[in-house]
Amino acid sequence: MEDQSPKRIRCKAAVCRGAGEPLAIEEILVDPPKAYEVRVKIICTSLCHTDISFWQAKVSPVFPRILGHEAYGVVESVGEHVEGFAAGDAVVPTILGQCDHCTSCTSETSNLCDAVPPTMGPGMRRDGTGRFWDEQGNPLHDLLAVSTFSEYTVMDMNQLVKLDPAVPPKLGCLISCGGATGVGAAWRLAMLKPGSSVAIFGLGSVGLAVAQGAKMCGASKIIGVDLNPDKEKFGKAFGVTDFVNPSQLDKNKSVGGVISEMSGGGVDCSFECIGVPSVMAEAFRSTKKGNGKTIVLGLGNDKDEVRLPAQDLLYGKCIMGSSLGGLKPKTHIPILAEKCMNKELELDGLATHEVGMQEINKAFDLLLQGKSLRCIIWMGK
Amino acid sequence: MEDQSPKRIRCKAAVCRGAGEPLAIEEILVDPPKAYEVRVKIICTSLCHTDISFWQAKVSPVFPRILGHEAYGVVESVGEHVEGFAAGDAVVPTILGQCDHCTSCTSETSNLCDAVPPTMGPGMRRDGTGRFWDEQGNPLHDLLAVSTFSEYTVMDMNQLVKLDPAVPPKLGCLISCGGATGVGAAWRLAMLKPGSSVAIFGLGSVGLAVAQGAKMCGASKIIGVDLNPDKEKFGKAFGVTDFVNPSQLDKNKSVGGVISEMSGGGVDCSFECIGVPSVMAEAFRSTKKGNGKTIVLGLGNDKDEVRLPAQDLLYGKCIMGSSLGGLKPKTHIPILAEKCMNKELELDGLATHEVGMQEINKAFDLLLQGKSLRCIIWMGK
Repeated sequence: MEDQSPKRIRCKAAVCRGAGEPLAIEEILVDPPKAYEVRVKIICTSLCHTDISFWQAKVSPVFPRILGHEAYGVVESVGEHVEGFAAGDAVVPTILGQCDHCTSCTSETSNLCDAVPPTMGPGMRRDGTGRFWDEQGNPLHDLLAVSTFSEYTVMDMNQLVKLDPAVPPKLGCLISCGGATGVGAAWRLAMLKPGSSVAIFGLGSVGLAVAQGAKMCGASKIIGVDLNPDKEKFGKAFGVTDFVNPSQLDKNKSVGGVISEMSGGGVDCSFECIGVPSVMAEAFRSTKKGNGKTIVLGLGNDKDEVRLPAQDLLYGKCIMGSSLGGLKPKTHIPILAEKCMNKELELDGLATHEVGMQEINKAFDLLLQGKSLRCIIWMGK
Repeated sequence: MEDQSPKRIRCKAAVCRGAGEPLAIEEILVDPPKAYEVRVKIICTSLCHTDISFWQAKVSPVFPRILGHEAYGVVESVGEHVEGFAAGDAVVPTILGQCDHCTSCTSETSNLCDAVPPTMGPGMRRDGTGRFWDEQGNPLHDLLAVSTFSEYTVMDMNQLVKLDPAVPPKLGCLISCGGATGVGAAWRLAMLKPGSSVAIFGLGSVGLAVAQGAKMCGASKIIGVDLNPDKEKFGKAFGVTDFVNPSQLDKNKSVGGVISEMSGGGVDCSFECIGVPSVMAEAFRSTKKGNGKTIVLGLGNDKDEVRLPAQDLLYGKCIMGSSLGGLKPKTHIPILAEKCMNKELELDGLATHEVGMQEINKAFDLLLQGKSLRCIIWMGK
């Protein structure tokens, strides 16, 4: 009788062989899913600044590696003990897990599942091993245990969210990380209310998703901050009401000071969507005393330190951050999908470019040159 | 017909003439209360580390100055437009105001009243002027617009809390700042729940009040951290369940690491009650990923900066602070008084020493030598 269990798959992947090198499209081997794991056929994926940070070796410098963590796919096969997923299901991967049973998952606020705790280093989170091999049989490291720049990939069932098949693949891709992070930060972490004032540092995809989240929550003043003047029109399209370009300010003025003036003493909440410690400090300065909140969403270098005036803490200011905007992926990503389908949220505009897998390096160029927000990469092309 | 309006009062005060100098008991003149102001006869006051920070000129170096901000007193006279206070009322001053009408007072979370916003510098908060004069007619600066090291003082009606006359003066003194700050931080800012784990850095009066607040909220693990081994027994008396003396750890162990081990990956909430940036960073390291909270309550130097690993913010950690533990003084201090009278909270043990006003410098010695928690200073003696 024939063995029906899933076999190794041979497929194409975009492999990063060294820091900053163009990705190479290679034939690779993908292991079958182990227990609690799901193998997914990736339909489309997109490039996020977090991929760039790993690619530039700012974080966890380990190569060769298969990058990519924003994607939409279809379940190909499931390992032992997998519940809730079957071949053909529409899914998106997430960098965070959700088991629904651990202390974190059952807490109101934490989204760092204890069953598959996040790490920056490679390896599946239950056993630390990898699922990818090159043609010579050498291991290829994964990224955040999802690695979506491959036609097939293996993920823990806790790092996979099932979506309504009516959700378009591009939208699934956008809300699997960057879009979720921005909207979640405004909606679930900042808990913005009608009339809130916010400042968003960095109008990339995450920052623009913050703007949409803030608009959805009824924020009345949404100040976008970016050095790139082109971002003003993008910002306005996503709900930004005021735009500040730090390079165009008088030399005797600080961004924090200008935002404070614009908002009557500081905004209710500022969002840092770049990952630069000095910008985090400026975002902190832009918030009001009493209960101003700064939310850090950008990923910089491994050892980055943010320096804050201690006295401002005593005046009631708060700084916090999150992965995935504080969302619990399985609980909240389907809600975001629904809000997008209902047009409560408009994230489609984040997908500014599309390429086939063979042109994946073009996606890197576009993002690095500030020309794209999200470039969707279609794996079959 | 005789003018019934309040006149200048001549009385005794402990005047600080220069940074670090012993206070001098001098005859001074205290202006009558202006509009919205109340003149109070101080019954007893106590010495807090915040007074020491100003005395040592670490913050707002302005002299001559009348220090003191924790106290219990009785209203002597009221200025025009004062509502809610009359001669004879039992009151405590607070460093923060509460008008109940401004944006901050009507918000759920901010306790920095916009009508009398806090500043470190001297001057009444409505008009910036002072109410104290020495015998030569030279102005004496105030402290935080309350200056309680004087037999009589003038305060804004928004910085005065009326208490049930059944509340003992000593207790009033203890909950006017330090006790309120500690209990408030655990109760209102951290919002600790039954089973929470906490670490308290610095077991002075504020830290011990945090322990009482944590105990009141049902925290199950209350780790006290102090370099002074005598603080272990004080800590245990106030609810501390575990004690860590950083000077007694193996050299290869950090306090944050030890606390993390003791609490299964970090405490839910840490409290910094000293005002030292490196300790704030250690407190931050001691909290768990996902939703660990660090609350800064200590006041250090004007320009102090706290340095934090940015990546820990992305893992969901939060650092915040507050004045007065996030309490709205008029709303919450009477509730604390009631909880103390009911023995839900036990703060009496904070008053370890008592002296007469003439011996006020002894209170400084005791606190600087780590021998006292709060030394009550009786003004009539």
